[in-house]
Amino acid sequence: MQYICKKNKMTNLIVGTVAFDAIETPYGKTDKIIGGAATYISLAASFFTDKLNLVSVVGGDFPESAIKMLENHNVDTKGLQIKEDEKTFFWSGKYHNNMNSRDTVETQLNVLETFDPIVPKEFSSSDFLMLGNLVPSVQQKVLDQMSQRPKLIVLDTMNFWMDNCLDDLLEALKNVDVLTINDEEAQQLSGENNLISAAKKIKTMGPKYLVIKKGEHGALLFGENKMFYSPAMPLENVFDPTGAGDSFAGGFIGYLSKSNNLTFENMKTAVIYGSVMASFCVEKFGTERLTEITQEDVKRRAEEFVSLSNFKL
Amino acid sequence: MQYICKKNKMTNLIVGTVAFDAIETPYGKTDKIIGGAATYISLAASFFTDKLNLVSVVGGDFPESAIKMLENHNVDTKGLQIKEDEKTFFWSGKYHNNMNSRDTVETQLNVLETFDPIVPKEFSSSDFLMLGNLVPSVQQKVLDQMSQRPKLIVLDTMNFWMDNCLDDLLEALKNVDVLTINDEEAQQLSGENNLISAAKKIKTMGPKYLVIKKGEHGALLFGENKMFYSPAMPLENVFDPTGAGDSFAGGFIGYLSKSNNLTFENMKTAVIYGSVMASFCVEKFGTERLTEITQEDVKRRAEEFVSLSNFKL
Repeated sequence: MQYICKKNKMTNLIVGTVAFDAIETPYGKTDKIIGGAATYISLAASFFTDKLNLVSVVGGDFPESAIKMLENHNVDTKGLQIKEDEKTFFWSGKYHNNMNSRDTVETQLNVLETFDPIVPKEFSSSDFLMLGNLVPSVQQKVLDQMSQRPKLIVLDTMNFWMDNCLDDLLEALKNVDVLTINDEEAQQLSGENNLISAAKKIKTMGPKYLVIKKGEHGALLFGENKMFYSPAMPLENVFDPTGAGDSFAGGFIGYLSKSNNLTFENMKTAVIYGSVMASFCVEKFGTERLTEITQEDVKRRAEEFVSLSNFKL
Repeated sequence: MQYICKKNKMTNLIVGTVAFDAIETPYGKTDKIIGGAATYISLAASFFTDKLNLVSVVGGDFPESAIKMLENHNVDTKGLQIKEDEKTFFWSGKYHNNMNSRDTVETQLNVLETFDPIVPKEFSSSDFLMLGNLVPSVQQKVLDQMSQRPKLIVLDTMNFWMDNCLDDLLEALKNVDVLTINDEEAQQLSGENNLISAAKKIKTMGPKYLVIKKGEHGALLFGENKMFYSPAMPLENVFDPTGAGDSFAGGFIGYLSKSNNLTFENMKTAVIYGSVMASFCVEKFGTERLTEITQEDVKRRAEEFVSLSNFKL
């Protein structure tokens, strides 16, 4: 258990959406449930560290019980702005039969429209910074408020920002250590079809490391002229892919901050723990599975990844 | 070098097409070049064993130099029927831009139309049997000629036979230890979308082990209630995917016959060597790359797979 139980002193600042989601998959549909990138990231990271600082925004409609739930998962919510007279960001989506693609049914930006992130002074020297998927200019505003450069800055983004605010995204990328995007986004950002060529080009934009997420086909880590490949755990029942990428990011940064070791070899293990947390996330709707598993479950799933991936020549 | 140089006494019977191919990819096109499942399987397996027995058929138009080339790669060609008055099987195909799909431009069955496989007496007690993609009834005829059950029978097939002679295929499958097919074929054969469910169902049809090939997304091995995942090596230049699956099969059975060890742990390594040989195959047109690499290249690529896949918790 030493590799998941020993909590350390590295602090993590998590920035991203805290939201309501309504999800439909071939297995059923939900009413409004708690979602958002920062929610998934925090829950996944909470299995590795108890030093989670959250910066986000919700409306007066966001239930106190959900904030309590985050606090019970080691999250310091003093950076969570509550706009009493406004409504929480809402997203609703419907997955296609193969679960590999989805349509956005509705997006209500609500509090996100005017979100001005304020990093509490106690958070501004956090050791690790995870910038979850969000408007690039908001990600940049957080970077600008850090009183010292974090040991590691990870940024997650998506095609929407490449389409609509590429310049802001490129500006933010200059400051980033690790970028996490999916394969199509890597191709879009680089203009290169081949993922190795794409990774080379993206590394000239700032990030020293690149994680390319390929959904059910796993994830690739590029950096230091090395590559590492983590499979996705084959699962008999994939219930809801929402939040898988964010859970991956949470497992990744959580493990890195816990181990406080930024060698490529250790980043490999962090990518595996990212895949571990993503594999749990998809087993039930929304955040449900992440709130019911134990550290023992995480340990067991990680060992399943060893037997799935490792071999001897 | 011990794991690729030490040739052993296990004999391998390779059955499949020896053919002419004409290939067009986004990188260029070829005239008629030497191809066929048994050709790729034999060339890939020749890096692991010098006991390769071929059963196949060609026409009088097949060049003696190509037969010599096979013999130079440890292939005993006494089971290669030469029909002087007929023409060799010909396939021509064109790959789409992303290389993940292709159209068959032309198929001339020629000698394959009446192919009646004859297993020379000396081959009928071969230790390992690789039934390359071919009419299932022809695969069955080979099985019927074996004087003793091989230690391992591997069968490769494709959707075309599932569409057109499913009963014959199901009959042949009853005798098989390892089935290799791609993900869509696994779904078609089982009627299950989920690959774990598909694997369970296919194992009730006969095969104790199943390899699901996912092209650029790697390969999954199922058996003994265990799973193993081999990535495909990410390559900057994929020139021509023709023969990748057959090269995989050749590396897989070649390594198993060399090591003569059928534990699940050793099958993992065989899947990796299959992926190694496939990764070379796609680097040039047709069989070109397989005929120019050395055992040192194979060893180096296998070590690249270790650093790509293996990690420590």
